[in-house]
Amino acid sequence: MTVPERGFPVAEFEARAERAQAMMAERGLAALLVCTEPEVRYLTGFYTPFWQSPTRPWFVVLPAEGRPVAVIPGIGASAMSATWVDDIRTWPAPRPVDDGLGLLADTLAELVAGPAGATGDGARIGLPMGHETHVRMPLADLDALRDSIAPMAFVDATDVVRGLRMVKSDREIAKVAHICDIVSGGFEGLGDLLSVGMTERQAFKAFKVDLLERGADDVPYLVGATGPGFDDVIKQPSDRVIEPGDLLMFDTGSIFDGYSSDFDRYVAFGHADDGARRAYETVWQATEAGLAACRPGATTSDLWRAMAGVLDAGGSLGNSVGRLGHGLGMQVTEWPSHTADDGTVIEEGMVLTLEPGLTWAAGRMMLHEENLVVRADGPELLSRRAPAELPII
Amino acid sequence: MTVPERGFPVAEFEARAERAQAMMAERGLAALLVCTEPEVRYLTGFYTPFWQSPTRPWFVVLPAEGRPVAVIPGIGASAMSATWVDDIRTWPAPRPVDDGLGLLADTLAELVAGPAGATGDGARIGLPMGHETHVRMPLADLDALRDSIAPMAFVDATDVVRGLRMVKSDREIAKVAHICDIVSGGFEGLGDLLSVGMTERQAFKAFKVDLLERGADDVPYLVGATGPGFDDVIKQPSDRVIEPGDLLMFDTGSIFDGYSSDFDRYVAFGHADDGARRAYETVWQATEAGLAACRPGATTSDLWRAMAGVLDAGGSLGNSVGRLGHGLGMQVTEWPSHTADDGTVIEEGMVLTLEPGLTWAAGRMMLHEENLVVRADGPELLSRRAPAELPII
Repeated sequence: MTVPERGFPVAEFEARAERAQAMMAERGLAALLVCTEPEVRYLTGFYTPFWQSPTRPWFVVLPAEGRPVAVIPGIGASAMSATWVDDIRTWPAPRPVDDGLGLLADTLAELVAGPAGATGDGARIGLPMGHETHVRMPLADLDALRDSIAPMAFVDATDVVRGLRMVKSDREIAKVAHICDIVSGGFEGLGDLLSVGMTERQAFKAFKVDLLERGADDVPYLVGATGPGFDDVIKQPSDRVIEPGDLLMFDTGSIFDGYSSDFDRYVAFGHADDGARRAYETVWQATEAGLAACRPGATTSDLWRAMAGVLDAGGSLGNSVGRLGHGLGMQVTEWPSHTADDGTVIEEGMVLTLEPGLTWAAGRMMLHEENLVVRADGPELLSRRAPAELPII
Repeated sequence: MTVPERGFPVAEFEARAERAQAMMAERGLAALLVCTEPEVRYLTGFYTPFWQSPTRPWFVVLPAEGRPVAVIPGIGASAMSATWVDDIRTWPAPRPVDDGLGLLADTLAELVAGPAGATGDGARIGLPMGHETHVRMPLADLDALRDSIAPMAFVDATDVVRGLRMVKSDREIAKVAHICDIVSGGFEGLGDLLSVGMTERQAFKAFKVDLLERGADDVPYLVGATGPGFDDVIKQPSDRVIEPGDLLMFDTGSIFDGYSSDFDRYVAFGHADDGARRAYETVWQATEAGLAACRPGATTSDLWRAMAGVLDAGGSLGNSVGRLGHGLGMQVTEWPSHTADDGTVIEEGMVLTLEPGLTWAAGRMMLHEENLVVRADGPELLSRRAPAELPII
């Protein structure tokens, strides 16, 4: 398979900034402030696992015109200078007494002042405050910042970042497609990798190494379980030994160049009981119904209804996941959610999962997941379609 | 090497809750609310990579007495029921219109009402709001929650969680020691793993797989660089080919049972120039000075001064990291920070890094890091001490 080019050309970031700035203008936003990893990466290309350190806040401000401005800890200056951002302002973090607040407030005031020297008094600064967002800085600092920038004020800009990120570019889609291809190969090879007598922990390790060898950059999200049935679908491995007749579920968000897959597979060792086989076939058919309903102009709630109908007809006792799929991209889950009342209109270029799940007996849940991109004429699968019947290995 | 037991006995969580509740009583806190992965895991044992999904908030409330209460999305009920928590309240998340807020507000009101039916009016509920913390829920929801619980109010409880987590139990120390031992072996084996002609990307992959094979559960944090010198110390790999005379830096936070290492190593391929060798020896000697200064009763600023003196004497042109080491445990960096004015008093049981760094020429920075636990009589290294001279492989 052809490995997609790493990173993005400047034109990609220019297009993102222009889309953002058009939405900001419609909403009367003088600037957009972001402080979380995916948003900073989306606007700048800044990509590092250093976000795992909780010590320092990071800020990027997109003004009404031009390139984003980075207001970041000094440790990030070198990495940020390798991106398309040319205005990089740093402070010697960590500095709890003023961990970037003064520099950020000054930067906001300067950027909203306007080219003709008009004051930024009362300017509205967009900050994502809604569903699936959080503000990654100490709350005491955030409260102080809100006071210090008055009469400027933060207003919710969730719809701006949601609107930007929910529809993917061809380059983004290629990265998701590549990692889905790698993971599909990994799942198809489980029969060669796993066997009765291994522990869950050994199975996890073997699969993780296999995915890295196949070309995944990383496997940050891997959950799974084994047994005659289970309902913990976000589980870490134990020392349980795999037995004949066990089911195994692996669900992974693996990464290529900062973009994620998110799909699972179930296999059975040697044989499977009728309940598990019927549950598998029901969630597989529910996915078929979701694929048939997926096209530009339909809604996430249409997808939900199509899948839920099959699950109900199949005797589902419910599931605890709370939705039947979601968006996918830089994060293992993104907007939107396929729920009864989400109602997001599906657009060409969205990357989605379909994730129907059902409980077929007490404590026994089965999920099924595929990844797709929405094209003009319907879904194009990015994961290779699971077999229609529960695989026996 | 002996692999430490996985997980913790209930007695460990009881001790954590008792320590927390004693601090809460001193501060007049009727309850403690946490919503971030390490804090939830610390109080409950709930351990899953599902936190990578930004979709759903998670809450744990520790009342003034008794076990913590989980207020969580339904998808987590099964996993949480495997912990010592027995009061688990769920809602069908994601549900943007009320994503746990009503359930959380009701739970807080109930838990602070008191055994005799006294009202919780005006009760102070601790919530970490200070340095190294953030509130992981939508800001609009947080603002609504603050209004809805009045006259109860959130007050900063950073010092409670900081105080709890900064001093480790023997079981926690054993987990950090184990991953440090694994990573030490990986670093010592770099000469067999890497060679001139490999790309950075190949080197990263080889090292990551090697650490997994050696027993790391995961390698979520791996940064590094190659070349005659570099100053981006949070870098992801490129396709650059390693050349004779190159330096290579790897810095990893690898994981065993939810506890992290955090140290780096530099090696040179074939030969190294005098500037790099001198810089290496200076940061190695700075670490010696840090080790000599590290004992209960000293402060993090004492450590900083001991190390900074050696770096200055060695001709350092500064460094961008902002500190010379930090705490370590469930996260790759934790409180405290070794800075000129941090001043945290070092206690027995703290797990710390020493991380002196210097710039020896424009664009050429060298960091050096070791991990240790503070014992009554001084530091016990958890990483195996780096060679005193820059290793040539």
